[in-house]
Amino acid sequence: MIPSSAVLLPALSVSSQPLPLILLTDFGLADPYAGQVKGVLARHAPGAPVIDLCHDLPPFAIESGAWLLGRSLPHMPAAAVWLCVVDPGVGSGRRALAVQSGSGFFVGPDNGLLTPVLADPASRVVVELPGADAAGVSPTFHGRDLFAPVAARLALGAGLEAVGTPLTTPPVLLSDPGWGVRDGGWRARVMLVDRYGNLVTALPGAELRGRRVRGRIAGRPCGALVPTFSGVEPGASALVVGGFGTVEVVVNQGSAAALFACGAGAELQVEDL
Amino acid sequence: MIPSSAVLLPALSVSSQPLPLILLTDFGLADPYAGQVKGVLARHAPGAPVIDLCHDLPPFAIESGAWLLGRSLPHMPAAAVWLCVVDPGVGSGRRALAVQSGSGFFVGPDNGLLTPVLADPASRVVVELPGADAAGVSPTFHGRDLFAPVAARLALGAGLEAVGTPLTTPPVLLSDPGWGVRDGGWRARVMLVDRYGNLVTALPGAELRGRRVRGRIAGRPCGALVPTFSGVEPGASALVVGGFGTVEVVVNQGSAAALFACGAGAELQVEDL
Amino acid sequence: MIPSSAVLLPALSVSSQPLPLILLTDFGLADPYAGQVKGVLARHAPGAPVIDLCHDLPPFAIESGAWLLGRSLPHMPAAAVWLCVVDPGVGSGRRALAVQSGSGFFVGPDNGLLTPVLADPASRVVVELPGADAAGVSPTFHGRDLFAPVAARLALGAGLEAVGTPLTTPPVLLSDPGWGVRDGGWRARVMLVDRYGNLVTALPGAELRGRRVRGRIAGRPCGALVPTFSGVEPGASALVVGGFGTVEVVVNQGSAAALFACGAGAELQVEDL
Repeated sequence: MIPSSAVLLPALSVSSQPLPLILLTDFGLADPYAGQVKGVLARHAPGAPVIDLCHDLPPFAIESGAWLLGRSLPHMPAAAVWLCVVDPGVGSGRRALAVQSGSGFFVGPDNGLLTPVLADPASRVVVELPGADAAGVSPTFHGRDLFAPVAARLALGAGLEAVGTPLTTPPVLLSDPGWGVRDGGWRARVMLVDRYGNLVTALPGAELRGRRVRGRIAGRPCGALVPTFSGVEPGASALVVGGFGTVEVVVNQGSAAALFACGAGAELQVEDL
Repeated sequence: MIPSSAVLLPALSVSSQPLPLILLTDFGLADPYAGQVKGVLARHAPGAPVIDLCHDLPPFAIESGAWLLGRSLPHMPAAAVWLCVVDPGVGSGRRALAVQSGSGFFVGPDNGLLTPVLADPASRVVVELPGADAAGVSPTFHGRDLFAPVAARLALGAGLEAVGTPLTTPPVLLSDPGWGVRDGGWRARVMLVDRYGNLVTALPGAELRGRRVRGRIAGRPCGALVPTFSGVEPGASALVVGGFGTVEVVVNQGSAAALFACGAGAELQVEDL
Repeated sequence: MIPSSAVLLPALSVSSQPLPLILLTDFGLADPYAGQVKGVLARHAPGAPVIDLCHDLPPFAIESGAWLLGRSLPHMPAAAVWLCVVDPGVGSGRRALAVQSGSGFFVGPDNGLLTPVLADPASRVVVELPGADAAGVSPTFHGRDLFAPVAARLALGAGLEAVGTPLTTPPVLLSDPGWGVRDGGWRARVMLVDRYGNLVTALPGAELRGRRVRGRIAGRPCGALVPTFSGVEPGASALVVGGFGTVEVVVNQGSAAALFACGAGAELQVEDL
């Protein structure tokens, strides 16, 4: 039985136009894995637009994937189907899920990746997907053989009840948001290093609103919070609230990852000036 | 004249909807080559969906490209136009082909890349494409200037007879499938190293069905055949039948390419336990 | 007031079909930046086709971006909206522009990137975009929060007058075309190194039409101008007019960047044989 909260969910598209499909994976783009997934989507839901949000999540980095999912929701189409795959446990018996919330549909493994849409039980419905043992389903590639056909059906208008069965035990949730208050200041983990070498942390910029603060990372001072890159000299480091709405360690026209010789998982400390 | 087998081919889309275009190239994604090809497709066949299957085939690796083409066919839309470009001989006088088979249309160089759809003469029709010497056709970029306009015309409903002339001599075929039986066991070539470091070989998993086998690569044992990654301890190596339906050397949550210090072209030996 | 040249512009699509959107950025594809931009485009202009021309321009390389824009125009759909972002000065107060020319609409920063479409004042109309200080606009990500919504409106049929106000001072133009005649020969800058290691310069092939010339780069001879790669032995270097219509230093089945140990910014010298 679908929980009664189902009836509270905003209605998604009921037109004949398929919903857009949003892909968030750690498949990389060099390999044909994302391409084969898109082939399956095109076979099952011809005409559904496909948006590649990101395929280069660090391999197996569930926490970075969940963080990026939450941080991207406000920018992506609201009536959409998300296909999310960071799946080190593929083939091991972890459950496969489909979720409906006010932000759309989400299909992926039950390993915490979908935490941002699962965190509020009042606002979502979850089903477990069958079929992992079906003939023709590769035990190493559920993204293509299990998740993509389900995402395609949802894009064409199927409801959750048509693709799975209600969960009997709660889904896996990540409990650590990647930042916190400690010793009168803030600690935050680097979730992503971008191509410019910016060290993007999980610390919401809103936490620091109106404050004058400075940071330390990898044992060294990394500058004060400024409004934008050009607030410091070329080559100097600073903190900015970046495009994800969180604090980043940046170097104007340079690479903070290189300057501080650190990356994803490093801890930023922030304190009042 | 089109061979009489033409009349045996299943009819493809005759609706006003353009066929999807599938791209399989070694252009890479960092360069603008794939983007310009997509520009030409959009100019000539506006509205035709484009699916990037893979642009990062190893440069000039015709054999890997042909293998991936064959292994991707079951997952991609059946009524589609494939634009396949791995073309070290561009500008040298090698022929340009368009093929129709039960799997759709295929456009590319006559260098063996299209072997999987050319291998059965009973099931396909082939034409040679003119125009390599036409004004405005770059001698180094037939993908954009020669193949893409033809693919676009086919996507819009043109037949083979409208884009080329029948071959007078047979097309180039690759004769080596990349695997074989030898000394009471199997030998197989690594066709692709994926971002996880898995060593993907050409050996079909079906060959080993129901058997207990083990492998050697780069002079060292690389484990037994198991159903999936999680069948061995983290850090240990094994053989699995992966998402391409062929045998892969894998390391659970690690890189087999790094562990065995080898890559595409390496030879896997498999024997009964 | 829109300059009177506006009325001379060819009419773009007035159908109900949205215009295609062409993306040219230095965001890279590993990061989710391009994906979030595409999310915003899909929110604001659902159904508009998106063409990724290139996302891997060298970071902050305005000159390479402008050169590639000009060299790609002939291959891309003519009635389109270009979203061009190479933007080291984001958040610093540089202006944001939208341009209409016979080649379509172009949205991007006022830093010279749009030079190829701005160079002829008789053929274009330019407006300055407001909104850089609006709530919700990230000071480090105008591509997503400022340019993308404007591009989406233009794709849906809005005119320039609806998205900005006429410029009161001229836009920034790059003055150096990256090549010139000197000492009886030609000098040209390497604008792009492609995945094959070809050194692509800004020197138009048309300059050398009918001539027999040879080149030097990084202090060493790099061969004569030949029609195509296969005009020299494998491993040998040569000059060819490549897919961008400009002179490239190439090595048949090898990497010129590796052979001559140089890259973007290097200077090629060409002289008559």
